[in-house]
Amino acid sequence: MKVHGKATRSIWTEPDGSVGIIDQTHLPHAFVTLRLTTLEEAAHAIRAMQVRGAPLIGATAAYGVCLALRVDASQGALERACALLQATRPTAVNLKWALDGMRRALHPLPPAERLAAAWAHAAALCDEDVAINQAIGRHGLTLIREAWERKGREGRVNVLTHCNAGWLATVDWGTALAPLYLARDEGLPVHVWVDETRPRNQGASLTAWELGQHGVPHTVIADNVGGHLMQHGEVDLCIVGTDRTTARGDVANKIGTYLKALAARDNGVPFYVALPSPTIDWTLEDGVRDIPIEQRDGRELTDVSGRLASGEVVTVRVTPEGSPVANYGFDVTPARLVTALITERGVCPATSEGLLSLFPERRELTGRTGT
Amino acid sequence: MKVHGKATRSIWTEPDGSVGIIDQTHLPHAFVTLRLTTLEEAAHAIRAMQVRGAPLIGATAAYGVCLALRVDASQGALERACALLQATRPTAVNLKWALDGMRRALHPLPPAERLAAAWAHAAALCDEDVAINQAIGRHGLTLIREAWERKGREGRVNVLTHCNAGWLATVDWGTALAPLYLARDEGLPVHVWVDETRPRNQGASLTAWELGQHGVPHTVIADNVGGHLMQHGEVDLCIVGTDRTTARGDVANKIGTYLKALAARDNGVPFYVALPSPTIDWTLEDGVRDIPIEQRDGRELTDVSGRLASGEVVTVRVTPEGSPVANYGFDVTPARLVTALITERGVCPATSEGLLSLFPERRELTGRTGT
Repeated sequence: MKVHGKATRSIWTEPDGSVGIIDQTHLPHAFVTLRLTTLEEAAHAIRAMQVRGAPLIGATAAYGVCLALRVDASQGALERACALLQATRPTAVNLKWALDGMRRALHPLPPAERLAAAWAHAAALCDEDVAINQAIGRHGLTLIREAWERKGREGRVNVLTHCNAGWLATVDWGTALAPLYLARDEGLPVHVWVDETRPRNQGASLTAWELGQHGVPHTVIADNVGGHLMQHGEVDLCIVGTDRTTARGDVANKIGTYLKALAARDNGVPFYVALPSPTIDWTLEDGVRDIPIEQRDGRELTDVSGRLASGEVVTVRVTPEGSPVANYGFDVTPARLVTALITERGVCPATSEGLLSLFPERRELTGRTGT
Repeated sequence: MKVHGKATRSIWTEPDGSVGIIDQTHLPHAFVTLRLTTLEEAAHAIRAMQVRGAPLIGATAAYGVCLALRVDASQGALERACALLQATRPTAVNLKWALDGMRRALHPLPPAERLAAAWAHAAALCDEDVAINQAIGRHGLTLIREAWERKGREGRVNVLTHCNAGWLATVDWGTALAPLYLARDEGLPVHVWVDETRPRNQGASLTAWELGQHGVPHTVIADNVGGHLMQHGEVDLCIVGTDRTTARGDVANKIGTYLKALAARDNGVPFYVALPSPTIDWTLEDGVRDIPIEQRDGRELTDVSGRLASGEVVTVRVTPEGSPVANYGFDVTPARLVTALITERGVCPATSEGLLSLFPERRELTGRTGT
C-alpha cells in the first residue's frame, strides 16, 4: 500500500543486511522507520509492538532468525533464536508457524549454507503473505459487492472493523482490510467504522491512518458504539482479523471482538473473519477453553500516548493512582457467532467441515472427518 | 460518601447563596470544588459535564432555577431558566422531571415567595435523591448477598459496572454503586470490575476514584474486556445505572452498556439495572426506536486528558489528523436483556407488568393494564 503516495511494504531488507520496519508505536503522529540489525532488536520489535499483527509478527520473526544466523549459524544458535522469538507473543499462532518453517528449512543444511537460505526463506514467506492477502481481498470483495447489491446500490456499504488487520498488520494489503482496499479501488462506495480498540488504540492510530493514506472513507468510534450503530441499521457487515483460529472456527482476536460479534448476531448483521490459513491452529477445537490469552502490561491501559498542541508526543496517565488494572490482550469469539471465514482459498462456514472443505489436505493429516 | 475521610455530598449550598459542586472534569487527578452563582454557570456545569449523572443533573438544574430566581423571580424568568436548563442534556429524563417539579411548585406562587420556595424545593429534591439511593442500595444488597450464597461464600463476589452510577452521579450513595458500598460496609467480599468507559473515561476517572476513596476493592479494565471475563466465570453479576428507562424496561445508559448486556445474556450472568423512579419515562415503550441519542463533541474521542509525570494535567490527541469521528453518548439495552430492575421500591422484572407492580399508581394514571 501507499505511504505519502509511495508503495511501501511493512517490512523489507536493506542493502546493508539489516531489516527495515515501520516503528508503529509512533503512528499516527509520525512515520518512523527502523533498521533491525540483531536478533535481540527483532525480538524487542515484536515484544514492544513496534511491529504487530499476526502475519507481520511471523515475517519479523523469520527475519529475526536471519539476523541471529549472521552472528552464529550453528544448530544451537538457530534453536536459541527460535525459542527467544517464540516467547515474545504467546497467542499468535503463526509466529510458531513461521519459526517452524524456518527451522524445518534450515536445520538440514550445513551451517555455512544456512544464512543465505534463511534470507531466501524469509523473503519467500513475505511474498507468500502478500499473495495470501490479495486472495483474501478478492474473496472478501465479493461479500462487499453482495452487500452493495442488497442495498439496491443505494448509499454506501458500511463495514465495521476492530483493531488493525490492515497492511500494517501484514507484509502488505492486510487481511480484514484487503477487501476494503480492493472495493475502494473498484469504485464501490465503502465506508469503514473504525473501533478505536482500547487499550492500545490500534484502530484509532493505525487503521484510521492507513485507510486515510489510501483514501478510504472512514469514521473512528469508541469501542462502545458498534452495538448502537447495528441497532440502527448503520452497519452492513463486520470484517475482523484473527490471531488464532481453531479447527472448528473459533477465533481469537483483539480483546472486544467477541462483543461486536454478539451485537452483530443480535441485529442480523453478517460477521466475517478474514484469515490467512497460517493462523489456523488445527490442533485446537474449543477456543474459549484452550487458547491462552496473553495478559499485558497494565500501563497500556493506565497511560495514553498522544500529541500535544505543540506537536510533541507525550504519555499521560488517565486512571487514579492506586487503582489496580487488568489488561487482557485477546478474547475468543465462538464459531457460532461467525457468519463465515474468508481465507485465501475462499469463503467457508465457521465449522470444522467448512474449513476442511477448503483445506482437504488437513482431513488426511489429522485423520478428521469433520463434524 | 467520604472524600479524604470527610462525609461529602456531590452538591451543596454555601452560606453566600451560591451552590457548591465538585468539578468532576478534574477527577481523578485533582479534587476541585466550584461555587455556581448564576443560571448560566449552572447550565455550563451540566453542559460541560462538571456535573454529570442523571440524578445530579436534576439536582443541579433545580439549583440552577434558584440561581436564576435570585436575579429575576418573574414567570418569564422561571420559564426561560427551565428552557435553558432543559436544553443542556436532551437524553436525561430526570432533568425534565426535576424542572417540571420546580415549575409546578413555583408557578402558582407570587414572585416574592418564589426564591425561598425554590431553595426549599431543590433541597428537598436532593434529600429525596439520597433516600431513594439508600433504598436502591438496600434492595441491591440482597442480590449481592444471594450471589455470595450461590458461591458457597467462597472467594469474592465479582460485580461488573459500566460508566459512573456512583455517588458522583447522584447527590449521595449512587444508584448502581449504592449496593456495593453497603456490601462493603457489611463486610461482604465484593470486587468491582470497572469499565473505563470511553470516550469520557468516567469509569477509569470517577468510579475507580470513588470506590478507592471508600475502600472498595476494584480493577479498571478496558470496555472491551467484560465479555472475556464473563466467558471465564469472572463476573458474578453486572449492575449498571440508566439515564432513561421506558415503561416496559428498556434502558438508555452510557454507550456500550448494550454490549455488556449481550455478553451477560450469552454467559448466563445476571444483568441488573439500578434506577431511581424519576428516570422512568412512562410515556415511552420502545427505547431503541424512541429514545433520542445525544451525539457529543468529537473531541471527547480524539482528545484524552491525563496527568504527565510532572503532575500537570494536559490533553493529547490520539487520532490521526483528518480522520472523522462520531461520538454517540448512550445506547439502549432492550428489556429482554435485563434480568431485573432495582428501584427504590424493590426489585422487579424489566417488563411493563414488573414496573407497574412496584408503581401501581401509574397503572391508573396511564390507563395501562400492563403487558
